[in-house]
Amino acid sequence: MDRTHDPKLTSFVASANGHDDFPIQNLPFGIFSPPGGKPRGGVAIGDSILDLGAVAPLLAGEARRAAEAAAGDALNPLFALGAGPRRALRAALSALLAADSAKDAEVRPHLHDAAGCTLHLPARIGDYTDFFAGIHHAANAGKQFRPDNPLLPNYKYVPVAYHGRASSVRPSGTPVRRPKGQRKPPAEAAPSFGPCRNLDYEMEFGIWIGPGNAQGEPIPIAEAAGHIAGFSLLNDWSARDIQSWEAQPLGPFLAKNFCTSVSPWVVTPEALEPFRIAQPKRPEGDPAPMAYLLDPADQAGGALDLAVEVLLQTPKGGPFRLSLANTSHLYWTFAQMVAHHTIGGCNLAPGDLFGSGTISAPSEDGYGALLEITYGGRKPVRLPNGEERSFLEDGETVILRARATREGCVPIGFGECRGTVLPAT
Amino acid sequence: MDRTHDPKLTSFVASANGHDDFPIQNLPFGIFSPPGGKPRGGVAIGDSILDLGAVAPLLAGEARRAAEAAAGDALNPLFALGAGPRRALRAALSALLAADSAKDAEVRPHLHDAAGCTLHLPARIGDYTDFFAGIHHAANAGKQFRPDNPLLPNYKYVPVAYHGRASSVRPSGTPVRRPKGQRKPPAEAAPSFGPCRNLDYEMEFGIWIGPGNAQGEPIPIAEAAGHIAGFSLLNDWSARDIQSWEAQPLGPFLAKNFCTSVSPWVVTPEALEPFRIAQPKRPEGDPAPMAYLLDPADQAGGALDLAVEVLLQTPKGGPFRLSLANTSHLYWTFAQMVAHHTIGGCNLAPGDLFGSGTISAPSEDGYGALLEITYGGRKPVRLPNGEERSFLEDGETVILRARATREGCVPIGFGECRGTVLPAT
Repeated sequence: MDRTHDPKLTSFVASANGHDDFPIQNLPFGIFSPPGGKPRGGVAIGDSILDLGAVAPLLAGEARRAAEAAAGDALNPLFALGAGPRRALRAALSALLAADSAKDAEVRPHLHDAAGCTLHLPARIGDYTDFFAGIHHAANAGKQFRPDNPLLPNYKYVPVAYHGRASSVRPSGTPVRRPKGQRKPPAEAAPSFGPCRNLDYEMEFGIWIGPGNAQGEPIPIAEAAGHIAGFSLLNDWSARDIQSWEAQPLGPFLAKNFCTSVSPWVVTPEALEPFRIAQPKRPEGDPAPMAYLLDPADQAGGALDLAVEVLLQTPKGGPFRLSLANTSHLYWTFAQMVAHHTIGGCNLAPGDLFGSGTISAPSEDGYGALLEITYGGRKPVRLPNGEERSFLEDGETVILRARATREGCVPIGFGECRGTVLPAT
Repeated sequence: MDRTHDPKLTSFVASANGHDDFPIQNLPFGIFSPPGGKPRGGVAIGDSILDLGAVAPLLAGEARRAAEAAAGDALNPLFALGAGPRRALRAALSALLAADSAKDAEVRPHLHDAAGCTLHLPARIGDYTDFFAGIHHAANAGKQFRPDNPLLPNYKYVPVAYHGRASSVRPSGTPVRRPKGQRKPPAEAAPSFGPCRNLDYEMEFGIWIGPGNAQGEPIPIAEAAGHIAGFSLLNDWSARDIQSWEAQPLGPFLAKNFCTSVSPWVVTPEALEPFRIAQPKRPEGDPAPMAYLLDPADQAGGALDLAVEVLLQTPKGGPFRLSLANTSHLYWTFAQMVAHHTIGGCNLAPGDLFGSGTISAPSEDGYGALLEITYGGRKPVRLPNGEERSFLEDGETVILRARATREGCVPIGFGECRGTVLPAT
């Protein structure tokens, strides 16, 4: 921890002090357009956004180089620079935005009111990969097909993942059109075509890749964390009826590729340093991770203690909390995901995106998808206003939030990942 | 058919006349670098490559616009223009390169000897999707797990596909490093880590996407063919031992993402017009395609009659033919793949790549992967020089070829898709 994490640090941007998500201890990066302006890199500070390219001349050295790399319409060049310049930029921004900043007068003209800005995807996503590291989710989903043996034999050895669709990842706020497709409920003899009946969300953590690797050259686990540029929230919208019919033998396809939502602010590993924890000890009897997935430093501090929350807003009320879980419920660390992804030689590139897999707590109040909460739709959930839901209905909004808190630290958040369901066309 | 297909047409480029792959009736597009020069768009003509940007000033109207769009280091802008300009460019190039060309003197300086050029990926691939439309392959692979019921119930309803890795697609000629990973043969109690023991190829057809669609707006089947820019050969290298351990429940991941090879020349739908055939009639008892997959014109002429061949070169001999099949062995048309991919709202973009799925003939001499030829490695194949192979060994080269022939037409080919296996590091 360094002075950027100091709980006594405040900003001359008054809205930052005590801000739920974006106090000066956070400083996440994103791409925004001010009213009438072009997309560009920015940093969130309270209810404002600071234009990174515009303040680059106020910076020097690595920090300036990083701010210049963030001046375009995607953060890929910043991500490509890696931890050193990103860390230098964050430290320099912390000083620029501090209550005792010597340059506040020069900075103020480059602050934009966030409420008037449009937020975009933070990067051009080359490839998107979705992991399955939420062990309670994997068990809950598996129970629906294999009640006695919910986790498959590979689960505790392999950080299971599949390739997702990069083109349909959208920033928070983009509405989600209910997909049509083939569905075959078990009771029907043949499939039919029509709008998805079992539309669901999945509460995931998004991991943005920084520097990549050459094809054929795996990233060792001890270096893997250095290839992560930051984190967002991710909603892996899922059409359960389409999925159950199409997904054998090659995995989910149309059930997932109509849309994936991400929160637009990339919270850096630096901002999350105070919230790092040891990877929770595996239950007695579980195999140890193989050597290519095992690093002492990663085991000692590669997990995160972040509360993640799902809320549902219906046309009649809310938002109501559907679940509260924690990123520590993931069975694999983010570094293990990077090491596994590349162990066969697959090349990652700056701006690639991973999903963590659905994060579910062990208890029912922390299940990360309606599939689990409603037991495949068989036990509808009752909302506080009396409405019942098995799956998502048109006009409803799903909101994901995450918050890092720790004794002696200023809490930081991720902003929202939000999407409203539009009816099928 | 038009004058570009005229079998009497010859070129002033002498090597084109009677050329196996690239007579003047073909004119495929690709990206090449002449010695010491930058990557740029070109068209293959016999043993030469014509620089498209350089000859753009000799063209007019749509053809000129298309040649200018092909002048950069990737064909995405040409693909985005769609069929009209692409067709106009092909017609204009046919006239420019014909034996009776009025401009042969102006064209000659822009011809490069293909043997001295480097060929690149034809486009920047946004997303890569691998279909599973080879029904004999699906049945052969399924037999290894479910001898009595090899095809899953969804196979004849759903053009099954999964998302692949775009970053690791490489042009023909790029060596393929044997991947390491987790493997667990059925006889062993726990998985082990090491080099893939069951390395395989898959003979597939590659489909390049032209104009895309907006998210949420499916491409109707009747318009789907218009979204295809052309075709290549594709080798979906597969690590069978890694695949069988990792692929449940979400599909293949590291087993495929270490490398996918494509042939560098994009053969256009126009060049293939003489080789279009009706989609073969489905066997008695098979369900009809659902309405969103059914178009009379596509059924009448949406399939292709192309012989596809796999050859193996070992350090001791060859190349030996391992199989000969035909693109007509695919259960779904290319237009059906496009319509299915977008039916839920997924957006395609110019330069996206599809694999057809492994193309296998019904008979053993046309099986498109060693998995099928050697029955999962249990019945090694005997090569003409006496060597036996269950799976690929280091130092071996797999070569894919395809050829279109028809009475009264000049045959055209695709060039090669070739890759040599390097030992694991």
